[in-house]
Amino acid sequence: MSAPRLETVLRGKGTEVVIGHDRPFCLIGERINPTGRRIFQEQLRAGDLSAIERDVKAQVEGGADVLDINMGVPLTDEAELLAKAITLVQQLTDKPICIDSSVVEALEAGLAVYQGRALVNSITAEDERMEQILPLVKKYDAAIIALPNDSDEIPMDAEKRMVLTRKIFEVATKEYGIAACDIVIDPLAMPIGADQSVVNTFFDCVSQIRDEFGANMTCGASNVSFGMPGRHQINSTFLPMAMTAGLTSAIMDTRTPSVVEAVKAADLLLGHDEWGGAWIAAHRARLAREAALTQ
Amino acid sequence: MSAPRLETVLRGKGTEVVIGHDRPFCLIGERINPTGRRIFQEQLRAGDLSAIERDVKAQVEGGADVLDINMGVPLTDEAELLAKAITLVQQLTDKPICIDSSVVEALEAGLAVYQGRALVNSITAEDERMEQILPLVKKYDAAIIALPNDSDEIPMDAEKRMVLTRKIFEVATKEYGIAACDIVIDPLAMPIGADQSVVNTFFDCVSQIRDEFGANMTCGASNVSFGMPGRHQINSTFLPMAMTAGLTSAIMDTRTPSVVEAVKAADLLLGHDEWGGAWIAAHRARLAREAALTQ
Repeated sequence: MSAPRLETVLRGKGTEVVIGHDRPFCLIGERINPTGRRIFQEQLRAGDLSAIERDVKAQVEGGADVLDINMGVPLTDEAELLAKAITLVQQLTDKPICIDSSVVEALEAGLAVYQGRALVNSITAEDERMEQILPLVKKYDAAIIALPNDSDEIPMDAEKRMVLTRKIFEVATKEYGIAACDIVIDPLAMPIGADQSVVNTFFDCVSQIRDEFGANMTCGASNVSFGMPGRHQINSTFLPMAMTAGLTSAIMDTRTPSVVEAVKAADLLLGHDEWGGAWIAAHRARLAREAALTQ
Repeated sequence: MSAPRLETVLRGKGTEVVIGHDRPFCLIGERINPTGRRIFQEQLRAGDLSAIERDVKAQVEGGADVLDINMGVPLTDEAELLAKAITLVQQLTDKPICIDSSVVEALEAGLAVYQGRALVNSITAEDERMEQILPLVKKYDAAIIALPNDSDEIPMDAEKRMVLTRKIFEVATKEYGIAACDIVIDPLAMPIGADQSVVNTFFDCVSQIRDEFGANMTCGASNVSFGMPGRHQINSTFLPMAMTAGLTSAIMDTRTPSVVEAVKAADLLLGHDEWGGAWIAAHRARLAREAALTQ
């Protein structure tokens, strides 16, 4: 007997996005993040947020339903920077935001200025992280991404991840009063190049979490192909497979049309694209891109 | 408690192919078939089998592990033509053959000349078809593709298909002495354009058949995209999803590299491509194709 399927409601200034098992897959655009981008880091450190505008535009045009915003720049006041960035992004787009930081003060500053219902990225099953962040999630009526690991080590077997997932639901709902539908589990997608079994373990976790909790799930979609050649092809194969197992959203760079298109094809095949409208739009966009390339 | 996973062994003149749940996906090349090919039909009617050579080469180069051969040309002696074609193909390749006909005499003529262990395409759950064909499968030590429909009508719900699948296993193993591992079920992939639920029904059947019988499965991979734009993209998304549910082979035209590549990526992700060797080869082949296109 499977648990009822839950829906996670996020809101931007004008847009509501519902993540759910009977809905189109939710794309969380991940590009608004200075990690590994030296020039962007320097601009942010100098107070220049202009590059964000281009990134927001590219992610939204690529098909992002939600925008992940991370302002983790060393030697800056991350709380102040994240609050400024969120305010700016909400002037540029109505899409909901996923507020992404490992710094509790930054999450709180972001939540305080955010207009709507945010997704917070992230907690783990560690007591301290939950204790610091879940009261903020409750206070600001947000939803939360939770990773089933409890220290620096990621459990490699599905059963351990399920134990930690159960702990997260237990603690978050009973001790902090978070609704189960507002807990989005990230079952930890790992690189296939390092270990042949990691994707099977991930799919196992996804199916079990769907059946046991009916919960929504997300992951860093490009992790699986790390270190392999042909990363876009691997990513565009991985996501439809994960969707078949029960994944309902992913954090990804939506500027890769082939990956977005694969997600739209999977939505169609899973019966989440009535009359094939989104698929046909994606197909037309590809034809237009191909025509532009050959001119 | 799931059934043990079965392996289906096919043999060509020199090549053994094993279809199984812990193995790379088995591609059955489907092009050697005159249906819808007027010129090829005329050539075959005139006794000219030369086009077969080109088709065999293209399917094998595309990555076919097994070759489906159908010689259903109206107004010909299909038995004689199929026997000739099989003899010819076995001179051209060592790959195993899937002998494909709705005519019992043609299947028997094909099996009689075939050197190796063939796959026969196909029976349904109809008593008459089983009675005609299963004794031949037993006599010639072949494997059989079986479709869970019992008349001209295809059952649209998973439960009815499961009832017919159970009947096929019961009758084939107990009345005709066919080993369960030699029964490859085709759970009936239908066009998504006609009905949004057909692919979910297909995936349900695939998972149930895997868990209840451990059986191998195949399908006509291009059926799902019939009538939709962007068929290659839909097909290359569908197969990795079906593999996640438990599909172990497909009948498809291997001349579409993007679909074959998606299957190789899915093999990698499912842990069926040790060290990623097949994936890296597929990736290099794509780079070579792209380089050739831009020259």
